[in-house]
Amino acid sequence: MKNQFYLYIQNLQNNITQALEEIDGKAKFKEDIWQRDEGGGGQSRVIENGDVIEKGGVNISAVHGPLPKSMQAYFKVGEVNFYACGLSLVLHPKNPMVPTVHANWRYFEMYDKSDQLIDQWFGGGLDLTPYYLFDEDAVHFHQQCKKACDAHHPNFYADFKAHCDQYFHNEHRDEARGIGGLFFDYLKANETFSIQDRYDFTTEVGNEFLNAYLPILNKRKDLPFTEAQRNWQEIRRGRYVEFNLIHDKGTLFGLKTKGRIESILMSLPPHVQWRYDHHPEKGSEEARLLSVLKNPKEWV
Amino acid sequence: MKNQFYLYIQNLQNNITQALEEIDGKAKFKEDIWQRDEGGGGQSRVIENGDVIEKGGVNISAVHGPLPKSMQAYFKVGEVNFYACGLSLVLHPKNPMVPTVHANWRYFEMYDKSDQLIDQWFGGGLDLTPYYLFDEDAVHFHQQCKKACDAHHPNFYADFKAHCDQYFHNEHRDEARGIGGLFFDYLKANETFSIQDRYDFTTEVGNEFLNAYLPILNKRKDLPFTEAQRNWQEIRRGRYVEFNLIHDKGTLFGLKTKGRIESILMSLPPHVQWRYDHHPEKGSEEARLLSVLKNPKEWV
Repeated sequence: MKNQFYLYIQNLQNNITQALEEIDGKAKFKEDIWQRDEGGGGQSRVIENGDVIEKGGVNISAVHGPLPKSMQAYFKVGEVNFYACGLSLVLHPKNPMVPTVHANWRYFEMYDKSDQLIDQWFGGGLDLTPYYLFDEDAVHFHQQCKKACDAHHPNFYADFKAHCDQYFHNEHRDEARGIGGLFFDYLKANETFSIQDRYDFTTEVGNEFLNAYLPILNKRKDLPFTEAQRNWQEIRRGRYVEFNLIHDKGTLFGLKTKGRIESILMSLPPHVQWRYDHHPEKGSEEARLLSVLKNPKEWV
Repeated sequence: MKNQFYLYIQNLQNNITQALEEIDGKAKFKEDIWQRDEGGGGQSRVIENGDVIEKGGVNISAVHGPLPKSMQAYFKVGEVNFYACGLSLVLHPKNPMVPTVHANWRYFEMYDKSDQLIDQWFGGGLDLTPYYLFDEDAVHFHQQCKKACDAHHPNFYADFKAHCDQYFHNEHRDEARGIGGLFFDYLKANETFSIQDRYDFTTEVGNEFLNAYLPILNKRKDLPFTEAQRNWQEIRRGRYVEFNLIHDKGTLFGLKTKGRIESILMSLPPHVQWRYDHHPEKGSEEARLLSVLKNPKEWV
């Protein structure tokens, strides 16, 4: 299963980076291959200063070895070995009319001391962070999420959409990071689903990513924008940084277990602003976005 | 003691904001008075878009009530009442030749259920974060720190300088946030010092702040700088954000206990950049700064 999924994310990384380079037309992904001292490593691909993508990363990694102490407590297990692989991507477009997108698909295995497999699961999802809210884009993105879910179980979309709204929440601001999408974790084999079913679902969501995001990117990337709109984008990117550094479990886990810093923090936006006590004008498009972030909507 | 110290920080806030407005010449501090639901409140003073100070806050607060659950665990006490007051300041100058400065002076009391005082202590310090390193500025800043310390105990400077280097450390980057200064905490009455002695020391450090920082600000604020140097400043400000959001106990405590967000996050710089895997040129001034941040120096 781990080889099957690693092959899948390698191909997905190729497909996504190729499609993005074609759309950008100017910048190319730079690849960095890195090794982890304790076992495994990764291939990071980062793009910067494109015509369309201001900064983005599409990274894969496969790490293994003894489960770090901090993670033993987190998973409530003793001394075990683990294998984890996944693809993580974040794209920060230049144009404030195009939303930032994040996605991740991952697979985890745990082994006892005689290297017998004792646990395995899939996780992942995708979510959208707009600076200006085009309702039709939000509907399109969620429709693609729902389509991938509905092919596997009638409850998946509602469950994983709710989980996404709950997870990508800036508690200290009492607002969502964006307009959500899907978030799922600990998808294990059970009475209803085999581990192959979990693989099929996770990869179906992966396959839907470009269909969910590229039409939005293409539709909005050449819209005109003002300096004030660009400032708003940079201020909102500040909230993105706050979420990733304060609340995101993946980021914090990576930092505390000495993952490759530059691969983990590729998620941070290129230009960011913090202004004191900033509030958009009443009745503005900026204020409308905030009101949706305060009260997550059902889009489909 | 609490009234004495609160009066002190009110005066100090006035002195510092007045001196900074005079030097800036353009921007004025904006005052926000806020109340805490559970007891107490504060006066935040924030300055933005000055000729000299790009963004800065000089905030005081005095809060009290039942010690929040999360703080009970932190202090290893049961259900007690508390009182805490302090002044916190962060100044982000526009010119990359001027260092960012942070300082804080605070006083804490704890009471049992019959409102008897069971503990009290002082804490605080000041530290400097340069973007370009002028050795004479670092020496001056540390000399002023040492002067305030030496008036009270021959070990204070060495101890509190070391504590500062240890505390303001971006563990995940393996580098210091800046070139340090002083950091002290839990200064309680003991065989050697009365609580009045602790007050005298803490306020002596507070009184030294303007002497430590203003000569540097005045000497560097009109130096010419290039766009590349400004970019370097914004990239390094990213490290400042990383420290405050990932490691700083005061920031995290404030966020988790629902303090006033805008007063807590006034510490974040106005314009910030994150570039992927950025490294300064070998032998450059930027590289020299990094090497000092990797290996904290003795400046006096």
